Amino acid sequence: MEGSGVGYLEDAAVAVRDTRIVDVGPTAALLARFAAGEIIDASHHALLPGLIDAHMHTPWAVVRGVAQDVAHWMQKGLSPYARHLHREAALAGAWLNVLEALKAGTTTMGDYATPIEGWADIFAAVGVRAVLTATINALPPGEMAGWRLGDLYPLSDEIGAQSIRAAVDFAAEWHGAENGRISVMYGPQGADMLSLDQLLHIKRLAAVDGLMIHMHVAQGDREIDQMLKRYGKRTPAFLEQIGYLDDQLLAVHLTEATDDETTQIAYSGARMVLCSGSIGIIDGIVPPAVVFRSAGGMVALGSDQAAGNNCNNIFNEMKLTALFNKIKYRDPTVLPAWEVLRMATIEGAQALGMADDIGSIRTGKKADLILVDLNALNLMPVLTEPIRNIVPNLVYAASGHEVDLVMVDGRILVRDGKVIHIDEDAVRAEVQQRAQEVAAAVKRDPQHHDMALLQAMEAGRL
Amino acid sequence: MEGSGVGYLEDAAVAVRDTRIVDVGPTAALLARFAAGEIIDASHHALLPGLIDAHMHTPWAVVRGVAQDVAHWMQKGLSPYARHLHREAALAGAWLNVLEALKAGTTTMGDYATPIEGWADIFAAVGVRAVLTATINALPPGEMAGWRLGDLYPLSDEIGAQSIRAAVDFAAEWHGAENGRISVMYGPQGADMLSLDQLLHIKRLAAVDGLMIHMHVAQGDREIDQMLKRYGKRTPAFLEQIGYLDDQLLAVHLTEATDDETTQIAYSGARMVLCSGSIGIIDGIVPPAVVFRSAGGMVALGSDQAAGNNCNNIFNEMKLTALFNKIKYRDPTVLPAWEVLRMATIEGAQALGMADDIGSIRTGKKADLILVDLNALNLMPVLTEPIRNIVPNLVYAASGHEVDLVMVDGRILVRDGKVIHIDEDAVRAEVQQRAQEVAAAVKRDPQHHDMALLQAMEAGRL
Repeated sequence: MEGSGVGYLEDAAVAVRDTRIVDVGPTAALLARFAAGEIIDASHHALLPGLIDAHMHTPWAVVRGVAQDVAHWMQKGLSPYARHLHREAALAGAWLNVLEALKAGTTTMGDYATPIEGWADIFAAVGVRAVLTATINALPPGEMAGWRLGDLYPLSDEIGAQSIRAAVDFAAEWHGAENGRISVMYGPQGADMLSLDQLLHIKRLAAVDGLMIHMHVAQGDREIDQMLKRYGKRTPAFLEQIGYLDDQLLAVHLTEATDDETTQIAYSGARMVLCSGSIGIIDGIVPPAVVFRSAGGMVALGSDQAAGNNCNNIFNEMKLTALFNKIKYRDPTVLPAWEVLRMATIEGAQALGMADDIGSIRTGKKADLILVDLNALNLMPVLTEPIRNIVPNLVYAASGHEVDLVMVDGRILVRDGKVIHIDEDAVRAEVQQRAQEVAAAVKRDPQHHDMALLQAMEAGRL
Repeated sequence: MEGSGVGYLEDAAVAVRDTRIVDVGPTAALLARFAAGEIIDASHHALLPGLIDAHMHTPWAVVRGVAQDVAHWMQKGLSPYARHLHREAALAGAWLNVLEALKAGTTTMGDYATPIEGWADIFAAVGVRAVLTATINALPPGEMAGWRLGDLYPLSDEIGAQSIRAAVDFAAEWHGAENGRISVMYGPQGADMLSLDQLLHIKRLAAVDGLMIHMHVAQGDREIDQMLKRYGKRTPAFLEQIGYLDDQLLAVHLTEATDDETTQIAYSGARMVLCSGSIGIIDGIVPPAVVFRSAGGMVALGSDQAAGNNCNNIFNEMKLTALFNKIKYRDPTVLPAWEVLRMATIEGAQALGMADDIGSIRTGKKADLILVDLNALNLMPVLTEPIRNIVPNLVYAASGHEVDLVMVDGRILVRDGKVIHIDEDAVRAEVQQRAQEVAAAVKRDPQHHDMALLQAMEAGRL
C-alpha cells in the first residue's frame, strides 16, 4: 500500500517483534536474519495489512435483519427496537459484531456508541485495535417518542451537558489504553442533535485534548431540514461557519451533500467515511466519495450498523463501493479494485490519522496483519502475469470467510478461521438470548404495530 | 416459496425417497410416519430449496480476475485471453466454477458454452442439475481478430451451419440425460451473431424439439449498433418481427432494452435472466428487471462469467440485485429480501420452465435442497417475531460459505461445506496449471499489449 498502488512481493516474509513489524523482505533473507519463536507458513495465502472499518455501531447487531426494505428506516424500522435495547443486549450485540468483523479480517474498528459500562472492555478483551467514539447528543429519549416528522428536535441543555461529561470521562479512561491499541474520538452525533453552544464546547475540548471529531454529516434529508429550520443553513455551510471544517473532523456519510459541498469539505482537510452498504440499503443512495477523493480528500470505509447494512465486513464494503460507483457513473473504470483496497487499508489509516502505525506492511508499523487463503475456490486461479488477478479477486470475489489468520498488535487472534482466545459459542448463546428478550419487549409494546415490516409478516411474505 | 411470499415452517422435516420429496411437515409427525435410512439433524439451520443460477459461462473461470475495471471489457479485457483458451483450460475452468457454485448452494446451473468434449460430463460427474446451452454463432474466429468497432460482423454461413449442427448433436446426446437431471436449450448467442436464415432455422428446430431458446438480448450498445446497421431495427423489434418473442425464449441481460421494449418482451411471455453483478461490473448498468416483473414477466438470476462478474454465487446475486435496484430507483423498498429469494428459487424455476420439479420445498418435487448454518456469526441472532429476520439475513448478510449441506436429486453432494465425492485439490491443481498455460500464451502474444490493465500493471498499481 506504499506508493500509488497496492504493491506486490512474491515469496516474501514479514518479521514481527512484540507489537511491531521489524522487517519485510525475501523469505530466505529473513529466515537467515532472524531466529523466530514461531514461523507461520503462509504458502498459497495473501498477506495483507489488517482491514480498517472506520465507522460501526456494534451494539445494533443484536437486532440484525429486522429493519430492511422499509422507508423511514429509523422511525418505522429501527426505533421500535431502540426503545427496548437494554444494556446487556447492547453488549451482546457488540460482542457478536466485533467477532464477526474480526473473522472477516477487520483489525481496526471505529465503533460509535453510547459509552455503557463494559462496551470498551470488549475491544480490550478481544484484542482488536479500536477507535471508540462515545455518542454525544442532547435528545431527550422520552420526548423523542412524541416527536413528529418535520418538528424541530426538542434539544435539552441538561442531556447535552451530561452526554458531553460522559464522553470526556470516557476519553480520560480509554484514550491510549491497552498500550495505545485503543484510542478515542469525540462524537457529536450530528449538527442537528446538539445546541450551537454544545457543538462549540466539544470543538474546544477536542482541540485541547488533541482528539479528532467523529460526526455524522449531511446524513439525511431530515438533518438538512432541521438545520435549515434552526439556522437557515445546510449542514456543510453551518459547520464551516462554526469552525468544524478542518483536519480534525472525520465526517461520516455525506449522503445529502452536493458535489460543491463535498468538495468544500474535502478542501478543508476533513476526512470522509463512506458506508456504501448501509446507505445503499437504507436510502438507495451512493454517497459522493468519488468527488471527495477527486478533491484530494481521504476516504475510509465503514460498515455502519448491522440493523441497517446487516453485516459488518470490509470485504463486502470494498465490493459494494466499487460496484455502486461504477453504476452511479455508468463507467466500469470508476474505483478499480486497487483503489478500494487502498481505501480499506492505507487511506483508511490516513483518514483516521493513524497511517504512521497501520494501513500498510512496512518496517516500524504495528503488526496488524491478515492471511487470506488463495486456495479458496472463488479466489482461484492465481495469476501474476501479464495481468495479476489477486487484488481484483480479493475485491470482487472474496467474502471474508477466506481469512485464515488475523494478527493485531503482533498477537494472533484468529487461526484457521477461529477466534482462538474467546468462546464463540458463549457469545452466540448470549446474543440469541438477549435478542429474544428485546424482540419479546417489542412485541409487548403497542407501538410495534407501527412497524413497516409487520404488514409483510402478517401477509406471510417475510 | 409457495404463495406470494417465502413461507416458513419451524421445527419441520422433509422426507426424501430416491430423487424426490415425499413429505413435508412437523418433525414429530414425519419421524412417526417414515423409517429413514438416514436422518440429517438440521437444528440451527435453514432448509431452503437449492438456488438456481440460470446463466453461467463456467469455462471462463479459468481467467478469473484479469479483466475488471476496464472499458470495452470484451475487446480490451477478455479477448486477449479468449484467443488462447484451449480445451483443457476451458474444462478446468468449468470444473472450478461448478464446484464453487455448488458449495455456495447453487443446485441448478444454466451453463452456456461451446460444446467441447467433456463439458457436459462435468455436470454429470458432479451430480448437479444442469440446463446446458451450446453456443451457436456464425462468427469466424480468425476474421474477428481484425474486426473494428462499428464494422458489421463478418457472418459466415458455413460456421453458422456447423455451429447449429453441433448444437443439435449436443441436444440429441444430452437432453434428458442422467434421469432428466440434465436438459438442454438452443443458444443463438445474439441476434447480431447469426444470419436471419439461421435464426429462423433455430426457432423451427426449437419448436419441433420442444426446447427453449436461451439467448443474449439487447446485451450491449454494440449489439444494437449491429442490428440497426443490418436490419434498421433494434433487437426487440427485430425479434418480434421474426417470431422469437414467446414463452420459449429465455432472454438474458436486456442491458440496453428501454422500459417499453422490456414491457413488450415481458408481455410476450418470454422470460428474463438478470445478471446484476456481471452487468454492474462490466457496464455500470442495472438491467430493467423491475420493469419486467411489473409487466408480469418471470425473472431468474444469473451469475454470468467469472472473467467479468468474478464469482458465481447466487447469494451474491441476490444481495446485489436488491441493492442495485434500491439505488437505481432511490427507494429502499424496491425488491425486498423475500422477492429476490423468490427470484433465486421459485421464479427462477418458472423462468426455466421447471417449476413442477424445482424451486420450492413441496411433496412431489425433486429433492434439491440446501442447509444454511444459522449459527454463522453473520446470520445471528435468529428472531421469529414480531419480525422474522431469517430471510433478510440470508439475502443481506450471507455470502454462501454458510451452506453446510447440498442435496441434488436426493443425493448429498456437499457435507460440512466439502464436496464429498470429488477431489477438490485435484481440481485446484488442474485449474492453476491450465490458467498459467493460458496466461503464458497471452504474454507471448504481441496483441496482449493492447490490454487495458497492462498500464496499471506497469505503473505498479495492480
